Amino acid sequence: MKREGVLYILSAPSGAGKTTLCREIIDIFPHLRHSVSYTTRAPRPGEVHGKDYFFVSMDEFRRMIDADEFAEWAEVHGNCYGTSIRTLEENRAAGVDLILDIDIQGARQLQERYAGGVYIFILPPSFEELRRRLNRRSSDSDEVISRRINAAAGEIRESRWYDYIIVNDQFSRAVEELKSVIIAEQCRTARVLDAVSGIFSMD
Amino acid sequence: MKREGVLYILSAPSGAGKTTLCREIIDIFPHLRHSVSYTTRAPRPGEVHGKDYFFVSMDEFRRMIDADEFAEWAEVHGNCYGTSIRTLEENRAAGVDLILDIDIQGARQLQERYAGGVYIFILPPSFEELRRRLNRRSSDSDEVISRRINAAAGEIRESRWYDYIIVNDQFSRAVEELKSVIIAEQCRTARVLDAVSGIFSMD
Repeated sequence: MKREGVLYILSAPSGAGKTTLCREIIDIFPHLRHSVSYTTRAPRPGEVHGKDYFFVSMDEFRRMIDADEFAEWAEVHGNCYGTSIRTLEENRAAGVDLILDIDIQGARQLQERYAGGVYIFILPPSFEELRRRLNRRSSDSDEVISRRINAAAGEIRESRWYDYIIVNDQFSRAVEELKSVIIAEQCRTARVLDAVSGIFSMD
Repeated sequence: MKREGVLYILSAPSGAGKTTLCREIIDIFPHLRHSVSYTTRAPRPGEVHGKDYFFVSMDEFRRMIDADEFAEWAEVHGNCYGTSIRTLEENRAAGVDLILDIDIQGARQLQERYAGGVYIFILPPSFEELRRRLNRRSSDSDEVISRRINAAAGEIRESRWYDYIIVNDQFSRAVEELKSVIIAEQCRTARVLDAVSGIFSMD
């Protein structure tokens, strides 16, 4: 039963546990791939072009912006990062499911420029727990952590327009929920009807 | 985190394996309950009022129809069966998830009269396999089975307007998919936003 690939977009405030969740979910679904972004930054030792990133020059990146080739892009600390529409379309057509780990601004851009993604927001269980996690993993001052938590409050408000909200309270439960969203979305009528219509000659 | 109960509506052509799937899924989710219908037929030995059915008189059933109390109802072999709107609303408010195993006509009625259900259609993998399953479980003549398969073809066309389609090819996979739909729907933003808004004071 041939079907189109699904694009899953994951966002979260820093400290919600998104990266660990992503890693776990890709272990569970070997067919699920990380979307490969374009970047102007130099490869780090061990990074492979076409696997970790597509490494391109600033000129090439600018050409791609001008040609409207990005579903979303951003500049971070002087380097540009972007997701090309063609990458998304090729994977969709080939039936490859992609996971895109992206900040809220990027997700917003993507939603305006590319139809059909599944938007998932990962939440910490509370501000107190978020503070504990940020404290545990960094040597930042209380002030810096408070600033991060204020930023998180703004980000969390954006969860309204996502399709799903997963509260990462117990990790194993959050994994189960993310896994379920991925399987369920592949059963959505719009995604299986074509394949099924062929089998049962429904046209 | 308090949330509203979700109503899952399951339909399938006869022979798709819906009853076995339902039984399995209720074993997996002890909090998930079968919706209790009203009926005018007499209780069979062992059946309990309020658990298997609400057993009511034909007069009472007619009064409920006239008072618009049913989300859906039907007459089958001279007996009436119906799902009351109040049952659905009370369970929703109490946060109880319900499963409603119902034919396509009933699902259609329900969809017109009650908002917010999750509609799931169970399909056999092919007409050939459906024929094999119907042959295996009954002593009906080939002609009767052919008539059932023709009926199934019409029913399968209705799967278009359901939210999800689960193809019951391998039973364990169909269970996994149904389970995933149930968990994923509980993570839908519209269903968790209220609870989450309280925690993060998003209003």
